[in-house]
Amino acid sequence: MTIQDIIVYLGQFFDKVVLEGSGEGAITGPAKIETARQGQVSFVSNEKYLRHLETTQASLVVVHLSLDVSAFSERVSFLKVRDPYTAFVFLLKRFSAPREIACPGIAATAVIGSGVSMGEGVSIGEYVVIGDGCVIGDDVVIGAHGTLLGHVTIGSGSVLFPSVICYDGTVIGKRVTIHSGSVIGADGFGFAPQADGSYIKIPQMGIVEIGDDAEIGANATIDRATMGSTVIGKGVKIDNLVQIAHNCHIGDHTVIAAQAGISGSVTLGRHCMIGGQAGFAGHLELADRTHVAAQAGISKSFLQPGQSIRGYPAQPMREQLKQEALTRGIGTMKQRIDALEAALKSLLDG
Amino acid sequence: MTIQDIIVYLGQFFDKVVLEGSGEGAITGPAKIETARQGQVSFVSNEKYLRHLETTQASLVVVHLSLDVSAFSERVSFLKVRDPYTAFVFLLKRFSAPREIACPGIAATAVIGSGVSMGEGVSIGEYVVIGDGCVIGDDVVIGAHGTLLGHVTIGSGSVLFPSVICYDGTVIGKRVTIHSGSVIGADGFGFAPQADGSYIKIPQMGIVEIGDDAEIGANATIDRATMGSTVIGKGVKIDNLVQIAHNCHIGDHTVIAAQAGISGSVTLGRHCMIGGQAGFAGHLELADRTHVAAQAGISKSFLQPGQSIRGYPAQPMREQLKQEALTRGIGTMKQRIDALEAALKSLLDG
Amino acid sequence: MTIQDIIVYLGQFFDKVVLEGSGEGAITGPAKIETARQGQVSFVSNEKYLRHLETTQASLVVVHLSLDVSAFSERVSFLKVRDPYTAFVFLLKRFSAPREIACPGIAATAVIGSGVSMGEGVSIGEYVVIGDGCVIGDDVVIGAHGTLLGHVTIGSGSVLFPSVICYDGTVIGKRVTIHSGSVIGADGFGFAPQADGSYIKIPQMGIVEIGDDAEIGANATIDRATMGSTVIGKGVKIDNLVQIAHNCHIGDHTVIAAQAGISGSVTLGRHCMIGGQAGFAGHLELADRTHVAAQAGISKSFLQPGQSIRGYPAQPMREQLKQEALTRGIGTMKQRIDALEAALKSLLDG
Repeated sequence: MTIQDIIVYLGQFFDKVVLEGSGEGAITGPAKIETARQGQVSFVSNEKYLRHLETTQASLVVVHLSLDVSAFSERVSFLKVRDPYTAFVFLLKRFSAPREIACPGIAATAVIGSGVSMGEGVSIGEYVVIGDGCVIGDDVVIGAHGTLLGHVTIGSGSVLFPSVICYDGTVIGKRVTIHSGSVIGADGFGFAPQADGSYIKIPQMGIVEIGDDAEIGANATIDRATMGSTVIGKGVKIDNLVQIAHNCHIGDHTVIAAQAGISGSVTLGRHCMIGGQAGFAGHLELADRTHVAAQAGISKSFLQPGQSIRGYPAQPMREQLKQEALTRGIGTMKQRIDALEAALKSLLDG
Repeated sequence: MTIQDIIVYLGQFFDKVVLEGSGEGAITGPAKIETARQGQVSFVSNEKYLRHLETTQASLVVVHLSLDVSAFSERVSFLKVRDPYTAFVFLLKRFSAPREIACPGIAATAVIGSGVSMGEGVSIGEYVVIGDGCVIGDDVVIGAHGTLLGHVTIGSGSVLFPSVICYDGTVIGKRVTIHSGSVIGADGFGFAPQADGSYIKIPQMGIVEIGDDAEIGANATIDRATMGSTVIGKGVKIDNLVQIAHNCHIGDHTVIAAQAGISGSVTLGRHCMIGGQAGFAGHLELADRTHVAAQAGISKSFLQPGQSIRGYPAQPMREQLKQEALTRGIGTMKQRIDALEAALKSLLDG
Repeated sequence: MTIQDIIVYLGQFFDKVVLEGSGEGAITGPAKIETARQGQVSFVSNEKYLRHLETTQASLVVVHLSLDVSAFSERVSFLKVRDPYTAFVFLLKRFSAPREIACPGIAATAVIGSGVSMGEGVSIGEYVVIGDGCVIGDDVVIGAHGTLLGHVTIGSGSVLFPSVICYDGTVIGKRVTIHSGSVIGADGFGFAPQADGSYIKIPQMGIVEIGDDAEIGANATIDRATMGSTVIGKGVKIDNLVQIAHNCHIGDHTVIAAQAGISGSVTLGRHCMIGGQAGFAGHLELADRTHVAAQAGISKSFLQPGQSIRGYPAQPMREQLKQEALTRGIGTMKQRIDALEAALKSLLDG
C-alpha cells in the first residue's frame, strides 16, 4: 500500500489529511512508534512520545495538524490530521486481516429449526443450533457451537463468536458483536420467599434487546426481564464477565468494564463509563455521562448528569477523595488528641 | 382462561381465594398494574401501588384478603388471597409458554457413552455429549452442546440449559435448573508450592453434589472437592458468575447473588443470603440465616444465627454502620481538634 | 499397591524415604487422617493433627523425618520424608484414576480445517472444531465442543477440558491445562471515543501466549493484545472467572485467585500471589513476589520485590493494617474529643 493510498483511505474519515515529507515508499503495516521498522506506519498523539521521532525507523508517522515536524520530515513522511489516534485506529483496521470465524454459507453440521428466516451472505459455523422461528439478518456470522433458542432475531452484519448462547426471544440489532461464552437472556434471578424459608421461582417471561453497534465481551451474562425487556442501548460496550441483571436499561454508548455487576432494574444513562468490578444495588438510576470508578459500590441513584462517583458506598468524587484523605490523616489526628490531653493535664495539674 | 378457571387454579395453593366484583370476562395474560390492558390480570401487594387501582385497565387484580376494594369492584374484578405476590407468581407461571430447550427424545446428533442409564421422557438436545456410566433421570432436559464427562448422575426433572458442562462424577439432584455456560466440578484451585517457587498440582479427586430444587445461574463455576464433596444444599439459588471453590458446603435454601466468590472449604448455613460480589476467605463458617451485604469481604466466621454483616473486613451490620457514620464525620472531628488547639493556645498565651 | 511399592514411588521425588513400622499390608488409596480406614494411606504435616495418630485406622501415615512416632509404629506403618504434604500430593496423583476427557484418537465428529498439523497420541473429542493452520502437539487432549479458530498452536501434553475456546493465533505451551468455558484470545476492550460520544473499535491484532505448565481455571477470560502479545508466563496458575485484559504480562509462577481482574497492559512479576476479587487499574507493574490481598484495589505500581499489599487504594500491608486499626478506633477518638471539649469548657467557665 502506498502512502498515496493511505491518504485516499484516511480522506474518507477526515476533511484534511496533509502530507509532509517525500510521501514515497510502500507501507506494509502498522507498529508502535518505538518498535516500528522501515516500511511501517506509526503515530504520535501524546507529547511524551514525541522524542521517538528522532530515532523512529517508521517510514510514515501520523501526527496532529498543529505539530511542527519540519526537523524530521526529510527522513520520515508525515500525515497530519485532526485526530491522529483515531486515524491510526482506522489504519489498524485497514491492515488487519479479515478474521475467519465461520466459513461463508451454512455449515452442513448446523441444525436449523423450522420457520427460520435466513438473510443473504450469512456464515453459520459448525454445529450451530438455531431454534424455531429465528430471524437471521444479512451477512450475520455465527461461530461454531452457537446456540439460539426459539424466536431469536439477529440484525444484519452482527457477529457472534463461537459458543454464544441466546435464549428464546432475544432481539439483537445490527452490527452487534458478541464474544465467546456470553449468555444472553438467561433467567433473571427472581425467587419469592415462602413461609418455610424455601423459594418459588418467579417465571422470567421477558426478553433481552441489544441495540445496534453494541459489543459484548467474553463470558458476560445479560439476563432476560421478568416481564418486558432488559435493554442494552445502541453502541453500548460491555467487557468480559460483566453481569447485567433482569430489567436493566443501559443507555446508548455507555461503556462497562470487566466484572462489573449491575443488579436488577437499574437504569444507566447514555454515555456513562462504569469501571471494572463496580457493583450496583437494584432499582437505581444514573444520569447521562456518569463516571463510576472501579470497584465502587453504588447504593443510591445519582441523577445529576456528568458526575464522577467513587467509593463504597459511592459518593461524588470530590467528597470521596476528601474523605479518603481525611481517613489517611487519622494517625495525625490521634497524635494531636494525645498532645491536647497531655497539655490539658499539665495545665490542670499546674 | 376465565376468572373462574383462575380461582380453581389458585385454589391449589391457597385455602382462601375470595372473588369481589363481577368475575366475568376472559383473561389473556399477566401484566404490571400500571401498564395492564383490558383482559389482563395484575396484582397489588405494596401500598404505594394502590393508587393505580383508580386508573388500571386490568380486568382482574389480585390483592390481600384485608384490602377494601369496594370503591373499585364495580369496574374491576378482584381476587383476595393471603399472599397476592406469590399468587401472581403462580399466575405468571400458568401463563408462561413452556420453553423449548430441547426437543423430546434423544437427538440423533447426541453422543451417548457406554453404560448410560436413561430415564423416561428425557429430552437430550443436539450435539450433547454424555460420558460413560452416566445416569439420567426421568424427564431430564439437557440443552444443545451440553457435556457430561463420565459417571455423572442427574435426578429426575432437572433441566440443563445449552452448554452446561459437568465434570466426571458430578451428582445433581431432582428438579435442579442449571443455566448456560456453568461449569460444575472443575478442579479445585490447589497447588503445593515447591522450594524453587514453582507449584505441583494437587489432584482433585472429589466431586460436586447439588441438592434437589437448586438453581444455578449462567457462567457460574462450582469446583469439585480435593477429596470428598463440594456440597450445594437443597433449594439453594446461585446467580450468574458466582464462584464456589473446592470443598465448600452451602446450606439448604441459601441464596447467593451474582459474582460472589466463596473460597475453599467455606461452610454456609441454611437460609443465608449472600449479596453480589461478596467475597469469602477460606475455611470460614457462617451460621444459619446470616445476611451478607453486597461487596462485603468476610475474613472470619460468624457463628451466631441470623446476623447481618457488612464491610471489609466484614462485621455485624450495626457496628459497621456506626463505623461508617463515624468515618463520614471525620472532617468534623478534625475541625473540633483545630478549635481545641486554638482554644488551648489562647488559654496558654492568655 | 504394597508399602514397598510406595517407597519406590516416593523415592523418585525424595532422597530419603524412611520406613518405621512393619511395612506390611496392601494400600488401597489415600484418605484424611481423621477418616482413614484400614488399608488407606494418610499424612500429618501440621502439629494440630498429631493427636489423630492415637486413633487413626490408616495403615500407613506419611510424616516428617524429624517426627518421633515410636509410640504408634507398632500399630501403624510410617514413611518419613522431608515434605510429607508434597509426598501425599504425589500419592493422590498416583492413586487418582486417569480422567477421560476425550477418547484417544480423533473423534469422527471433529471438524479439522486445512493445513492442520496433528501430533502423535492426540485425543480430539466429539464436535471439536479446529481451524485452518492449527498446530497440535503430541499427546494433546481437547475435550468435546472445543473450538480453535485459525492458526492456534498447542504444545505437547496440554489438556483443554470441554468447551474451551481459543481465538485465532493463540499460542499455548507444553503441559498446559485449561478448564471448561475459558475463552483465550478474545478481543481486548479497546474503543476510541468520537466527538459525538460514540466509539469506534480499535482492531485487536495481537495474540495470547501461554507458557509451559500453566493452568487456567473455568470460565476465565484472557484477551489478545492490541498489537503484540498478552503473555501468561510459565507455571502461572489462574483460577476460575479471572479476567486478564489485553497486553498484560503475567510473570512465571504467579498465582491469581478466582474473580481477580487485571486491566490492560499490567505487568505482574514472577512468583506473585494475587488474592480473589482483587482488581488492578491499567498500565501498572508489580515486582516479583508481591502478595496482593483479596478484594484489594491496586491503583499504582509497587516496584519493591516481596511486598504484601492490601486495601483500596492498596498500600503496603503494615501501613494498611495500621490504618484499619486507627479507623476502628475512631469512636474512641470521638469520645476523647468530647471529653477534651467538656474539660476545656469547665476550665474556661471556671
